Amino acid sequence: MSSVRTPDPNPGWLSDIALDETRSRVPILYVEAVPARVDALGQIEQVGVLLRGSATTGELSRTIVSGRVMHGESVRDALLRNLEKDLGPTAFPQLPAAVVPFTVAEYFPLPGVTPLHDPRQHAVALVYLVPVTGECNPRQDALELTWLTPAELLDPSVLADMEGGRGQLLKQALAWAGALP
Amino acid sequence: MSSVRTPDPNPGWLSDIALDETRSRVPILYVEAVPARVDALGQIEQVGVLLRGSATTGELSRTIVSGRVMHGESVRDALLRNLEKDLGPTAFPQLPAAVVPFTVAEYFPLPGVTPLHDPRQHAVALVYLVPVTGECNPRQDALELTWLTPAELLDPSVLADMEGGRGQLLKQALAWAGALP
Amino acid sequence: MSSVRTPDPNPGWLSDIALDETRSRVPILYVEAVPARVDALGQIEQVGVLLRGSATTGELSRTIVSGRVMHGESVRDALLRNLEKDLGPTAFPQLPAAVVPFTVAEYFPLPGVTPLHDPRQHAVALVYLVPVTGECNPRQDALELTWLTPAELLDPSVLADMEGGRGQLLKQALAWAGALP
Amino acid sequence: MSSVRTPDPNPGWLSDIALDETRSRVPILYVEAVPARVDALGQIEQVGVLLRGSATTGELSRTIVSGRVMHGESVRDALLRNLEKDLGPTAFPQLPAAVVPFTVAEYFPLPGVTPLHDPRQHAVALVYLVPVTGECNPRQDALELTWLTPAELLDPSVLADMEGGRGQLLKQALAWAGALP
Repeated sequence: MSSVRTPDPNPGWLSDIALDETRSRVPILYVEAVPARVDALGQIEQVGVLLRGSATTGELSRTIVSGRVMHGESVRDALLRNLEKDLGPTAFPQLPAAVVPFTVAEYFPLPGVTPLHDPRQHAVALVYLVPVTGECNPRQDALELTWLTPAELLDPSVLADMEGGRGQLLKQALAWAGALP
Repeated sequence: MSSVRTPDPNPGWLSDIALDETRSRVPILYVEAVPARVDALGQIEQVGVLLRGSATTGELSRTIVSGRVMHGESVRDALLRNLEKDLGPTAFPQLPAAVVPFTVAEYFPLPGVTPLHDPRQHAVALVYLVPVTGECNPRQDALELTWLTPAELLDPSVLADMEGGRGQLLKQALAWAGALP
Repeated sequence: MSSVRTPDPNPGWLSDIALDETRSRVPILYVEAVPARVDALGQIEQVGVLLRGSATTGELSRTIVSGRVMHGESVRDALLRNLEKDLGPTAFPQLPAAVVPFTVAEYFPLPGVTPLHDPRQHAVALVYLVPVTGECNPRQDALELTWLTPAELLDPSVLADMEGGRGQLLKQALAWAGALP
Repeated sequence: MSSVRTPDPNPGWLSDIALDETRSRVPILYVEAVPARVDALGQIEQVGVLLRGSATTGELSRTIVSGRVMHGESVRDALLRNLEKDLGPTAFPQLPAAVVPFTVAEYFPLPGVTPLHDPRQHAVALVYLVPVTGECNPRQDALELTWLTPAELLDPSVLADMEGGRGQLLKQALAWAGALP
């Protein structure tokens, strides 16, 4: 997922070697969030998508908020930390009252097992839709945060640009929220 | 539910006679909301409970936000309208991104069919947990809005005071939100 | 929804006149079910779609299991009754352990308010995905029950044939179940 | 959780040393299942609870179906494997159509952080309610599988016996299923 390109504030907590070793042993738990602007009735108006450049290949791709749950960290803490890491400290995300995700996303290293894949690891992500009410200022390694309407989001070219097959997560988020155009 | 004691702003849309007749024919659709104060992580700190006096018997009872979905009205519109009716215009409720309720509550006129009952009608309610961020000013027919912690809420005397057996809905709301003490 | 074309076993419980009158006063509560064949892991293999001819226009359309919740009837009873009405007595549906639907569908008489509409009424449906394990024998007024894979289901011509815009419910069901191809 | 006392069929896939090391680095992903007998309407009649003796202390405790998700294994595969491991090959569990759990359980090594704890590790479990339709034959290391009604389950002595604080998961499962007595 995105931790290579969006380093944790305290990246030293697990060395790269230890992390690689761990990744070969167990599925790694992630939290992911689809940021949304909602109206007074709670309906999605726009969804935020991050544009990023790969440090190694220079390729651009789109993604959502994503990051590991650290040892000893609660799911809620991980969700808030990663939202702040990717959207900045003034996004004011409204975390869900229940920790039940709208879907569980499974990424396998081999493409094709599921529509989702992550070449680095077997990852399992709890995925949330999170309304944000403040100003989003993505970190410098994210080139841009784009707000798209549900109709714009379902444009095949946008879906195809989503890293690791996450276009499917966007479709699931919109379907769950009753916001399929 | 509460529509007798908390009249709609436009009560004339269905006469009492027409409403009584309709109530004998089909289940009546309601929306209900458990108002909550949540922290930055989305966790419930307090739940709002309304204290009301019955116009006919003078008895006091506790309840949550509750009201009918009107003909032609969307579920979200009904939810916002009833939140404003019971909590006032400055409560700033955060309506859920998905219209899926945390539970479906079924009230039968005869007590004992389910833990919930409503002597006036067969009612089916979509029940939501709704964080509120503003000032709540319940209407005059509500004597009081009390904010209780999850532990205070589960006090048997509080649960027993909940109108129509709604103590069970409070337990379900806390269980769903992972806030059982 | 489907009650005109698939009469209830005891249609006399509410006269046509009383029903029409009621429909003009309150939203009518429905249950709907997307029947599915699932594998040992619970994954959707096929979804059942009903083909029906309209008594009045003779037009063919596709739909899912659908019917009203009657006065005094529980949501679970209504769900089982309508599954048996549309799929026959040997379908052996596996009703969900929780009465929470995967979505709430809102049908308005005027097309265009939501993607769903029902010219007869304002209806609100609790929609479930229900695995069936037995033999399905749709009643005579249903011409056919077709089992389609998720990929076949998402064919635009199939989605467009779904009565009242229910193609969207099928997409939501697949998204929720993680079965979008 | 239960992997010490209920060894995997292929326990060699991760050595004890490697597992201990991994447990100190990342949260470990589990699946857990509350087995249930349901009636034709899907309502819970009884819940299955496993009685186990600790290999090290000899103490008896109660638990639910629980086990790790292995590297490369899907959540559904892990769920089915652990159900078969704990309930035997003829339990015929009905896995859920959606992989969304009814709750996410977080176990910390230190007691008191949440109501749940696991002295061996930081574990995060996706928890499902799974109806079983066949004969359950728990493995020999489980002394007994007891079927309890919701009322029996909520007996404080039963809840207190649940390993790692899982009494709370049982309450959440019943609340979610609308089966609180």
